[in-house]
Amino acid sequence: MKELFSMSLEEVINLSASSEPTPGGGSVSAICAAFAGSMAAMVCNLTIGKKKYKEVEERVMDLRDETMHLISEFKNLVYEDMAEFEKLMDTYKLPKSTPEEKEKRDAALEEALKGATETPLKVARGCLRLLRIVDELAPIGNKMAISDAGVAAYLAEGSLRAVLLNVDINIPSIRDKEYVRNVMKEKEQLIAEAQELKERSLGVVMERMG
Amino acid sequence: MKELFSMSLEEVINLSASSEPTPGGGSVSAICAAFAGSMAAMVCNLTIGKKKYKEVEERVMDLRDETMHLISEFKNLVYEDMAEFEKLMDTYKLPKSTPEEKEKRDAALEEALKGATETPLKVARGCLRLLRIVDELAPIGNKMAISDAGVAAYLAEGSLRAVLLNVDINIPSIRDKEYVRNVMKEKEQLIAEAQELKERSLGVVMERMG
Repeated sequence: MKELFSMSLEEVINLSASSEPTPGGGSVSAICAAFAGSMAAMVCNLTIGKKKYKEVEERVMDLRDETMHLISEFKNLVYEDMAEFEKLMDTYKLPKSTPEEKEKRDAALEEALKGATETPLKVARGCLRLLRIVDELAPIGNKMAISDAGVAAYLAEGSLRAVLLNVDINIPSIRDKEYVRNVMKEKEQLIAEAQELKERSLGVVMERMG
Repeated sequence: MKELFSMSLEEVINLSASSEPTPGGGSVSAICAAFAGSMAAMVCNLTIGKKKYKEVEERVMDLRDETMHLISEFKNLVYEDMAEFEKLMDTYKLPKSTPEEKEKRDAALEEALKGATETPLKVARGCLRLLRIVDELAPIGNKMAISDAGVAAYLAEGSLRAVLLNVDINIPSIRDKEYVRNVMKEKEQLIAEAQELKERSLGVVMERMG
């Protein structure tokens, strides 16, 4: 497994740009989600310890801890996404000459496809949690840095939309129709809630900036 | 100057999350724009050399070169953004006790504010160029990787919206009203064109995925 987070930023971008199969879109979306989180954490850190924001300090400390936890979750999901992708590619290579082989391959494929669907869903759920944090932070965070709460909101929503494309690729090949229905329903909810939270946060950010 | 691109991805995210003033939202948006570019480049690299895509190969090679050029431009803009931010912070610290000092400070501030406005504008223009590349790539790139063209589109548009918040912060303090009018007009055009390109690319991506 490529140790992306120990590699230099330059190397990670070049590796992503290359024809290497990983990191692909799911992992890169999760990296950008971590960067979105870093902007929310920065706003928290620039609010904590400031006299003017003493009243909200305790809550902002909690929001920072939640955000840092989310960032490390995104990092784990980058590795999980690369592992799931490799597993799926290996499964496609399984033999399918006899009916027995074909049956075994189909079952393994169904499982691998679900795995490769769950990981982007987890990233998207993380982006939504981040957007909830930003929504709470936008009205109370340090006004001097509040545009960066807006940066967090835009990048988190963009990462959520991007990572869900990796659900869209796998869904048509999954046979378990109930699973597919549930995933599609959750996907629509994630998108709708993310958009609403982004717009509300940005409204507050623009007002406090103006 | 922090050599962000030589630092590990982990360190860059942690530094962004800290209360250190740089990298801030402008730089982090440019980093995500570079990651968006990496996904467009990957789609090009997975298209080039494939028999099935022989007819479009030459054009895709050009698109890849343009994309790699854009990625290195985003990298330079990350450093430029940090430098402009530091310059602006230093300018705010200039003495303003006498009318002479105040006048000198005001002039230096006007210049620093314009500098800190130009850099995010350059990043946003780069995101728009990337969206034009994705728009051209979406119908001709390797179908097997086409979801990643969609990832590029979502991340590029999110980065464009995010980075333009750094225009919004500085604009109210700039005295040159003609400059402000021109910047606001360009900003609106960038946003509108980016949204249109994103939606068109995503439409093609979804169709080719389905």
